[in-house]
Amino acid sequence: MEKLYDRLKECYPEMVEIRRHLHEHPELSFEEVETPKYIAAYHEKLGHDVRTGVGGRGVVAVLRGGKPGQTVALRADFDALPIQEENDVKYKSKVDGVMHACGHDGHTATLLVLAKVLNGMRDELEGNIVFIHQHAEELAPGGAIAMIEDGCLDGVDVIFGTHLWAVTPYGHIQHRTGPFMAAADKFDVIIQGKGGHGAQPHLTKDAVVIGSQLVMNLQQLVSRRVNPLDSAVLSIGRFEAINAFNVIADTAKITGTVRTFKENVRDLMEREIERAVKGTCLTADAEYTLSYQRGYPPVVNHKDETDFVARVAGDVPGVTAVVECEPDMGGEDFAYYLQHVKGTFFYTGAQDANRDEVYPHHHPKFNIDERAMLVAANTLGAAAVTFLKEAAIKEETTVQ
Amino acid sequence: MEKLYDRLKECYPEMVEIRRHLHEHPELSFEEVETPKYIAAYHEKLGHDVRTGVGGRGVVAVLRGGKPGQTVALRADFDALPIQEENDVKYKSKVDGVMHACGHDGHTATLLVLAKVLNGMRDELEGNIVFIHQHAEELAPGGAIAMIEDGCLDGVDVIFGTHLWAVTPYGHIQHRTGPFMAAADKFDVIIQGKGGHGAQPHLTKDAVVIGSQLVMNLQQLVSRRVNPLDSAVLSIGRFEAINAFNVIADTAKITGTVRTFKENVRDLMEREIERAVKGTCLTADAEYTLSYQRGYPPVVNHKDETDFVARVAGDVPGVTAVVECEPDMGGEDFAYYLQHVKGTFFYTGAQDANRDEVYPHHHPKFNIDERAMLVAANTLGAAAVTFLKEAAIKEETTVQ
Amino acid sequence: MEKLYDRLKECYPEMVEIRRHLHEHPELSFEEVETPKYIAAYHEKLGHDVRTGVGGRGVVAVLRGGKPGQTVALRADFDALPIQEENDVKYKSKVDGVMHACGHDGHTATLLVLAKVLNGMRDELEGNIVFIHQHAEELAPGGAIAMIEDGCLDGVDVIFGTHLWAVTPYGHIQHRTGPFMAAADKFDVIIQGKGGHGAQPHLTKDAVVIGSQLVMNLQQLVSRRVNPLDSAVLSIGRFEAINAFNVIADTAKITGTVRTFKENVRDLMEREIERAVKGTCLTADAEYTLSYQRGYPPVVNHKDETDFVARVAGDVPGVTAVVECEPDMGGEDFAYYLQHVKGTFFYTGAQDANRDEVYPHHHPKFNIDERAMLVAANTLGAAAVTFLKEAAIKEETTVQ
Amino acid sequence: MEKLYDRLKECYPEMVEIRRHLHEHPELSFEEVETPKYIAAYHEKLGHDVRTGVGGRGVVAVLRGGKPGQTVALRADFDALPIQEENDVKYKSKVDGVMHACGHDGHTATLLVLAKVLNGMRDELEGNIVFIHQHAEELAPGGAIAMIEDGCLDGVDVIFGTHLWAVTPYGHIQHRTGPFMAAADKFDVIIQGKGGHGAQPHLTKDAVVIGSQLVMNLQQLVSRRVNPLDSAVLSIGRFEAINAFNVIADTAKITGTVRTFKENVRDLMEREIERAVKGTCLTADAEYTLSYQRGYPPVVNHKDETDFVARVAGDVPGVTAVVECEPDMGGEDFAYYLQHVKGTFFYTGAQDANRDEVYPHHHPKFNIDERAMLVAANTLGAAAVTFLKEAAIKEETTVQ
Repeated sequence: MEKLYDRLKECYPEMVEIRRHLHEHPELSFEEVETPKYIAAYHEKLGHDVRTGVGGRGVVAVLRGGKPGQTVALRADFDALPIQEENDVKYKSKVDGVMHACGHDGHTATLLVLAKVLNGMRDELEGNIVFIHQHAEELAPGGAIAMIEDGCLDGVDVIFGTHLWAVTPYGHIQHRTGPFMAAADKFDVIIQGKGGHGAQPHLTKDAVVIGSQLVMNLQQLVSRRVNPLDSAVLSIGRFEAINAFNVIADTAKITGTVRTFKENVRDLMEREIERAVKGTCLTADAEYTLSYQRGYPPVVNHKDETDFVARVAGDVPGVTAVVECEPDMGGEDFAYYLQHVKGTFFYTGAQDANRDEVYPHHHPKFNIDERAMLVAANTLGAAAVTFLKEAAIKEETTVQ
Repeated sequence: MEKLYDRLKECYPEMVEIRRHLHEHPELSFEEVETPKYIAAYHEKLGHDVRTGVGGRGVVAVLRGGKPGQTVALRADFDALPIQEENDVKYKSKVDGVMHACGHDGHTATLLVLAKVLNGMRDELEGNIVFIHQHAEELAPGGAIAMIEDGCLDGVDVIFGTHLWAVTPYGHIQHRTGPFMAAADKFDVIIQGKGGHGAQPHLTKDAVVIGSQLVMNLQQLVSRRVNPLDSAVLSIGRFEAINAFNVIADTAKITGTVRTFKENVRDLMEREIERAVKGTCLTADAEYTLSYQRGYPPVVNHKDETDFVARVAGDVPGVTAVVECEPDMGGEDFAYYLQHVKGTFFYTGAQDANRDEVYPHHHPKFNIDERAMLVAANTLGAAAVTFLKEAAIKEETTVQ
Repeated sequence: MEKLYDRLKECYPEMVEIRRHLHEHPELSFEEVETPKYIAAYHEKLGHDVRTGVGGRGVVAVLRGGKPGQTVALRADFDALPIQEENDVKYKSKVDGVMHACGHDGHTATLLVLAKVLNGMRDELEGNIVFIHQHAEELAPGGAIAMIEDGCLDGVDVIFGTHLWAVTPYGHIQHRTGPFMAAADKFDVIIQGKGGHGAQPHLTKDAVVIGSQLVMNLQQLVSRRVNPLDSAVLSIGRFEAINAFNVIADTAKITGTVRTFKENVRDLMEREIERAVKGTCLTADAEYTLSYQRGYPPVVNHKDETDFVARVAGDVPGVTAVVECEPDMGGEDFAYYLQHVKGTFFYTGAQDANRDEVYPHHHPKFNIDERAMLVAANTLGAAAVTFLKEAAIKEETTVQ
Repeated sequence: MEKLYDRLKECYPEMVEIRRHLHEHPELSFEEVETPKYIAAYHEKLGHDVRTGVGGRGVVAVLRGGKPGQTVALRADFDALPIQEENDVKYKSKVDGVMHACGHDGHTATLLVLAKVLNGMRDELEGNIVFIHQHAEELAPGGAIAMIEDGCLDGVDVIFGTHLWAVTPYGHIQHRTGPFMAAADKFDVIIQGKGGHGAQPHLTKDAVVIGSQLVMNLQQLVSRRVNPLDSAVLSIGRFEAINAFNVIADTAKITGTVRTFKENVRDLMEREIERAVKGTCLTADAEYTLSYQRGYPPVVNHKDETDFVARVAGDVPGVTAVVECEPDMGGEDFAYYLQHVKGTFFYTGAQDANRDEVYPHHHPKFNIDERAMLVAANTLGAAAVTFLKEAAIKEETTVQ
């Protein structure tokens, strides 16, 4: 394993270079063109089997080890966000209004250089490694689901992935068995009342009042309908009824999000939102349209694989703490991979200690401590190599 | 008319005597026995045609005038209330827990003595006078509706009635065309949720929350559904959900009143209450029972007859002011008479100037300035006599 | 009076001509330039004392009668609205986005021609007539208040005004003593919560929830705080909190109107709105800004003058019905004149019987039955002439 | 350890006998007289150091092992509930209206017999065992806090306790690190409005409406103020405003419970309830009184000791499953012991498989599978003995 760590350390400058190149040339979800080309070219140069256009714009590269064994998938996403960068750095985004504000540039750089290093250790590998470079993580329905349908997990035994996490100190690895990131759904309600003059409420069905009542009623789903031992959030971001002051609103548009960690709680919320909308509108004799759009499912880590990564991470250079964390209410389409194969998703601390303030993901001033890429590469690499080795030993033992 | 006023003045002591006798012997609504006997005996002594047991316990006496003409009805109610008197007067109620706390004793004394005086003027009367002594005004469904069904208005052309009004100064006559007193309805809702342990809301349907939501939703009927130019009140007197602090309520009982002046507003309120209950329960997946009990309809005075009484009252001895008043949200079953014949109901000020504090009707310390009985008798008498006279003139004119 | 009616009838074509001219050249409130010039020129030609720029852009013309006596003011407003006309008529507005959609063109034509006719009867007039041509009725603070401050009512004994009313049948005159049109106020609330991520409500103060609660709480002002015998309306036209679905709102902007007929109810509403906003924000630990802008006060007609116009109108040619109407929740700055001198404001029915549908005031297809202008001129003229005559008689009588 | 299990098995009939004796003679919290006498006598007979009246009515007995070492406390509570037993068993409660409906009779029998058996193994014990027999677990403030103040934990290194759990299958041991049972608090609010006639809301401050609004507002504490990753419940059991249907309520009484697992969440709830009550009453210009009474704190198990018991339990005869469970929203004053020394509280499955229906704790038909007492004794005994042994080894190792 020392060899792996040493080679990665040697290649760290290249990692930084790749990351900064990608950072300067970000591409939006489902609009990635140059990034997948760049990735494919890198793997092709290494002699890997490369498949492009997987599930749309994804790239899958396979490294076959020198010895037979299982197959480990490592995943990195590569899309950027519609945000105008406000960082004052040399490698600032050259695309107006588009920015790698979530660290996917770092994910990709990490995985490419790790692929190069593992390729150099090919003969010792007891199995294969599949590098899944995923497009469109930031925008539902996401790239993962289509890549899976297009076969990216075929033959894969286990998958590992990490997120460079700018709000976690450099050197920390955060893991958790079970619910790790939430299901993030969206709902839209249009209350169709009956507009009119502000002085004649009796001739109208006041959509502002009905909408407000709905907002109140929806508060009860979390307080009364969800098991207090489960977590759920329902927040309304948009309440739109823009009329003159002396007009009674014809419609009110209400849009919100629901976050849950369990499918049954998610089903409950969807069902109860509909009931609340229906009942509230019936109360006021109004009509409505409701749409509930499911985002990514919750990321639910498998126990054995999570314990495995936590164990392996303990010996990785650069890792100063391996910590079990609370679940996060944000979403990730890594969730889909874990519905198909065993595996785990973890955070690699990337907080930049040199900055006065911590800017969260999706902020125009978001940035990472680039050294975290090396920690991530070490950890993912150690996980992959160790997993194949232990699987081989177990296989051997079982065969005997 | 001077004769009428003089005779009434002479008989004022008898009026007081009768009133105090009745005050000492109050009888509850639908339980009146001695009072109607007393009334019937008085009229029989005068030689009037008397019918007892009208519509249950009512008494109707007819005085036929010396000349042909129309028929005027005058009404007085005679039931008392389940209230323990707290006045310290010689003629205090002798019946425990029962009291003439609304002035019906005065109404009856007024009408009896007026009947006696009019009887003495029989030959001059150009038509007939029907004295309607009504039982059970205080308790729905009231005595009026049954007396009408039993024929008390047969042959009647117009009806007049007054209420001795303890919150209006002595000497004032208050009248109003159109809505004068409100329809007073009652509604009962039982929210049937699903009880349970306070720590497990998700297994319950919390009747306290659902009931509270209903109370909130019902506020919108007056604020949003009723024409702002109309009057309506919805008040909830009872919210009952009595459980241990750590229990979630299975049921909540909600009882309230609705006051309106127009039948269409009343219909609207009844309809919208049901809609609100239905929608609120649907929102929470709960069941309910709802009953809406209509009390008396609104007292709606006829224009010509109201103007007539206002005109006549201007010349009545003892009347110092004839005032148009605001409608009152209280109810009266005089309303039914006005649905069948023309007429008007008015207030005769009976506020006792000698008392420091004004006690409202139905208060254990309620009392009247007894002189108001004379004013009431004068006004009703003048209205009856004048009405017959003017009708005769008009008849004559028309015939020619 | 026949002379008045005959002359007005003869001049009806001119009335139509003037109205259509004005209709083609509408000018917005406080931006009137050509209209006051046109009006002033018309009066100057008649030899009236004309004062322009009164209170800004108003025009006041005085006709001195041949005999001494009192002074009657007649008022017409002349501003137009920011509405794009959708009528397909020859005299369609020539100004893009501006339209006489409230009949002020007709008011002005009516008053100008009436002035001409009364001028022709000058010698018979027992007093003076002041023609108040008011700018800016449609936009608070309105022109009336400034014109009054600038002396337009100096020496005036009584004022009459009418509104051509497109939702009342042609031939009807509608009047009402006391509250006739409402006070129309406006309020703006900005709820200052604390925004954040939709998944982390506990770190925020959710302005959408707080705003919705405020909307609910404001419903109780009409249902619980206002005397049910009074009228009041509180409607919210605008609820604005526009954010991404997964964001919790930092602010919510709420704008609404309050309509009342009595100053004490108006004061109550203003006071209670502030209390509700304060309490609601305290509940949620949020901040707010609240502004309450008083619009026109209620139009409260004087009894004697209203009865007078109702009496006079009964004999006016073209008037088929004189009807007491319900108050209207809309506002008019005629209210200010009635705070200074006696008078009344009434509706002259102008519904166009030839149209399939009735378009309300301020509608792009609003129009009037032009014959209503003649009815209005007849009624205003008869009121003015008769008032002066009766005042003179009374004066004479009193002197003797 | 086999010796321990064998002896306990032999003594099982005595355990049943003791339990049934106590079951027949239940005593209410803080009123226990005979039960502590019985317990003290049993321990005295064994020659243990016995202290009675600890913290009021508690009994503490100490068994000193033959070898030096640490000190383990084992706790059993012994009070009963004010419930009328409805079980048809030979050993039915002989005290009217009092019943061991929570299994404390079984806890005591378990601990007494375990004490006897451990006494028999005294020489092998590498340390001491303190038997804490606690009174008044069912009634706040509970017996634990006073017993601790009275020194029952002096010299104790670790504490173990279990609850015979009638809703968990026989043979199961349920454990959990961290929050295990909730803090259970109570709050009372009296809304002081201003009563009046149902027809005159404007003269009142309607306590039913204000109370309902408060109920709605309180829903937002869980939905908006509590971190969605934390658990909290707020339920209102009592909403009391009992008036005639046509009266507006002067007061409304609201009583509820709050359940939390963390002190900071508990503090938050208490603080936010006060804010909500204050803001809601300010909105309606009403007064209030609020009291918040803290019940037991949350039971928070220590990690190492919980893992230890889970490990030990795996080898205990009769245990068929050792399961990590969800926290329970109910409360236990075992919480206080864990604030002072390390330890853990766990459930011993006692569901009676022979009954058709499962009756929960505090139900008049509650009962246990008595064999669960043997499982509990085995587990507690094994935990105590093993803990002392391992501590001794560690001590030895450390010394070297």
